[in-house]
Amino acid sequence: MLTIKNWPPEGGVINVGSSVFAESMQEQGAKVYQVKWQPPAHGKAELIDILDKLKDRSDIDEANQRAIEIFSEAQPVLVGIGIARDVIPGFGDRMLLHAGPPITWEKMSGPLRGAVIGAILYEGWADTPEKAEDLASKGEIEYSPCHEHSAVGPMAGVVSPRMPVFIIENRTHGNRSYCTLNEGLGKVLRYGAYGEEVLERLTWMEKGLAPILRNAIEASGGIDLKSMIAQALHMGDEVHNRNRAGTSLFVRAIVPHLVGLDFPQADIRRCLEFINSNDHFFLNLSMPAVKAMLEAAHGIEKSSVVTIMARNGTEFGIKVSGLGNQWFTGPAQVVKGLYFPGYSEDDANPDIGDSAITETAGVGGFAMAAAIPIVQFVGGTPDDAVRFSEKMYSITISESRYFTIPILNFRGTPTGIDIRKVVETGILPQINTGIAHKDPGVGQVGAGLVNPPWECFEKAIIAFGKKYANES
Amino acid sequence: MLTIKNWPPEGGVINVGSSVFAESMQEQGAKVYQVKWQPPAHGKAELIDILDKLKDRSDIDEANQRAIEIFSEAQPVLVGIGIARDVIPGFGDRMLLHAGPPITWEKMSGPLRGAVIGAILYEGWADTPEKAEDLASKGEIEYSPCHEHSAVGPMAGVVSPRMPVFIIENRTHGNRSYCTLNEGLGKVLRYGAYGEEVLERLTWMEKGLAPILRNAIEASGGIDLKSMIAQALHMGDEVHNRNRAGTSLFVRAIVPHLVGLDFPQADIRRCLEFINSNDHFFLNLSMPAVKAMLEAAHGIEKSSVVTIMARNGTEFGIKVSGLGNQWFTGPAQVVKGLYFPGYSEDDANPDIGDSAITETAGVGGFAMAAAIPIVQFVGGTPDDAVRFSEKMYSITISESRYFTIPILNFRGTPTGIDIRKVVETGILPQINTGIAHKDPGVGQVGAGLVNPPWECFEKAIIAFGKKYANES
Repeated sequence: MLTIKNWPPEGGVINVGSSVFAESMQEQGAKVYQVKWQPPAHGKAELIDILDKLKDRSDIDEANQRAIEIFSEAQPVLVGIGIARDVIPGFGDRMLLHAGPPITWEKMSGPLRGAVIGAILYEGWADTPEKAEDLASKGEIEYSPCHEHSAVGPMAGVVSPRMPVFIIENRTHGNRSYCTLNEGLGKVLRYGAYGEEVLERLTWMEKGLAPILRNAIEASGGIDLKSMIAQALHMGDEVHNRNRAGTSLFVRAIVPHLVGLDFPQADIRRCLEFINSNDHFFLNLSMPAVKAMLEAAHGIEKSSVVTIMARNGTEFGIKVSGLGNQWFTGPAQVVKGLYFPGYSEDDANPDIGDSAITETAGVGGFAMAAAIPIVQFVGGTPDDAVRFSEKMYSITISESRYFTIPILNFRGTPTGIDIRKVVETGILPQINTGIAHKDPGVGQVGAGLVNPPWECFEKAIIAFGKKYANES
Repeated sequence: MLTIKNWPPEGGVINVGSSVFAESMQEQGAKVYQVKWQPPAHGKAELIDILDKLKDRSDIDEANQRAIEIFSEAQPVLVGIGIARDVIPGFGDRMLLHAGPPITWEKMSGPLRGAVIGAILYEGWADTPEKAEDLASKGEIEYSPCHEHSAVGPMAGVVSPRMPVFIIENRTHGNRSYCTLNEGLGKVLRYGAYGEEVLERLTWMEKGLAPILRNAIEASGGIDLKSMIAQALHMGDEVHNRNRAGTSLFVRAIVPHLVGLDFPQADIRRCLEFINSNDHFFLNLSMPAVKAMLEAAHGIEKSSVVTIMARNGTEFGIKVSGLGNQWFTGPAQVVKGLYFPGYSEDDANPDIGDSAITETAGVGGFAMAAAIPIVQFVGGTPDDAVRFSEKMYSITISESRYFTIPILNFRGTPTGIDIRKVVETGILPQINTGIAHKDPGVGQVGAGLVNPPWECFEKAIIAFGKKYANES
């Protein structure tokens, strides 16, 4: 599989893989070239066999190109705000949506449990945390992944029936996606906090913020989020953990429509101050924007492109365009990152949230070279940020026409994760993420870098092989 | 002056300067190391003599450190808007301020003449362009550089008595600076246009925009421009020809104070739409902000730091902290750049405007590595942008504590141009700039890159030598 001609140029020994042999040769004075190398597919014969059958398959390549074309030409536009139970398809009466793949109460981590308790209190289904926990644990609540309802939610990602949600319409293909409004920093539901201030804020967001913002959005005739993301990438955002530019551009787009609305000026001003005080406000727009793009590209027969990566705090799950509704899961990983004062890795919950939809779309961790200042938040150096982006081109099949990275000579972002490439190279998608405290009620404790577990891709390629390896 | 030990490492010939000899050696098979080298001070004995006397002078170094310290710790805050004649010191009755060093009507280039004609019409001193030109050319108008009045103006930089101006206060040292409000793109006074639409817009800016914005600024208690510039540098701006982030951050800062003002909502909305439609709006804030910082650092005896670089479209002039009120001038240069469709270098006016105050402060062209997307506007590649910034460290004496460049590992911007370093190295400050049509009334035709003429620095070092070479 590996052929090297006329190399090394001046003679010497090439050592591939383990460096032990090379070191011993060097000690004896030999000129040794060490090649970093991992066997494809972690050296597993079953997977190599599948990969061989899936190689050079023009039918798969064409299906992938079709998926990428749909993704690329999608036009996500913010068209309004609605109440979750009214606008999100399939929302049940006592249902709560959550981030990541399906999960039961028993397996939920602290922050997700905390958010569930908070949502039950907010809905008025119970009036104390104890009663809420009782309800939550006794099969009275139906839990369903956001992603099964064209929705996405950061961190715990809990959406309850009363909550207002952004409505994004893909004007090319007609599908819609949904996301709650970002609550800001500190003690917030998405990090598993459910105290009085959290519930009061959620109530104000429902009754104060959402009606005003909805009117402004509707008056605007719709806000083009794709162009806003493209601009934000030229302004130091990667639209996952850095959204200062996106939030600023959103404010610029919305304010002319806020001024003059038939609401008390003090209320409009409070809305503006709320949005302004939170540079992550745009995250809850970038996520559903790229969700709408990716969902349009889901369900293409034979396509090996990943259309969802999401975590519930216990498991990480992916979906693949050509593999229908099946989740492929593995254990959520520990995030390596920078911790807020007073916290350490011991406090951290494993990886959680639907926000890896950004990386699935080739932004977020994939576009860190566009957002160098993010290393001050998630750790690493400017060089690391550039390397992360560069590395992602080896597991993607395309480069975006619309989202570009200035420092890489305006190269398109790495787009379309191909499970074949991930398994062959062993290179896992690079995600950056906030870190939740493992206990309910505490909140964010840091931010950092993480990868999906290998298992997701191993299971996916086996399923893909089963379905497609023997046709062509 | 040049000592090289143990080099080249493997033997061979070092050729310094002209490459003709090296090429001929190489043809004969010799290993030749070509060293790019220019004699210091362009090889002029008089200048070398001055430089020798100014070298290793701790008194000058200390004066420069004092100047840099004042510059660095200045705190420019936008505190209000006033009418030029009321707030700008020394504003005469029939006076017009202009960009760059002093100039007479006879020597003014097209765009500056156009702006003067427009300002006369706007003031009502004449009612036709012909009569205005007559007035302008017959000694009826007093022309004075903005910089002589603590003001700055982009391009033609014309300020007339009626015009509203931003008031910036340096809260550390108490000095104030002033700048008109940015008119937007297309046909505008600062590019020498003076038609009906230009004058109507100026009138609306005076009567519609300025009162509303003044009230909002005053309600805000002052807007910290230094922190805004620092943030903008992390968001793809260099705050000279790229101000999208700065403009966005300004909108975010001002909107909560615009909402609820006692003005008709439609008028407030028009103001917002005007600001929003122009990504250069922040330029007229970044310029006076750094002007306030630099002016505080002017007048330090023995300091060889440049505190002004400015062009009037005919001449380029600089001032030096330790050389009082004297301008050192040379011919304004031709800008190399990207032209709008239908225009070429033949249409271009020589370099014009006070906006090189940004480069004087270590941003603008000096911070292009922070603003890679700007190469799509002024030309060049991402690598060029990084190189421009890196090169400027060789003619500056410090690195900013507050303004940093993410891609250079958050290195502080190159700060404090030392005329000794410019003359010794022959490296001229790197400026990026808009390009005005050479005829009055046309407007902007492109944007590009330019340097000051060498003469400015040669004259300055001679004057500095005369004043300071023989003491220590």
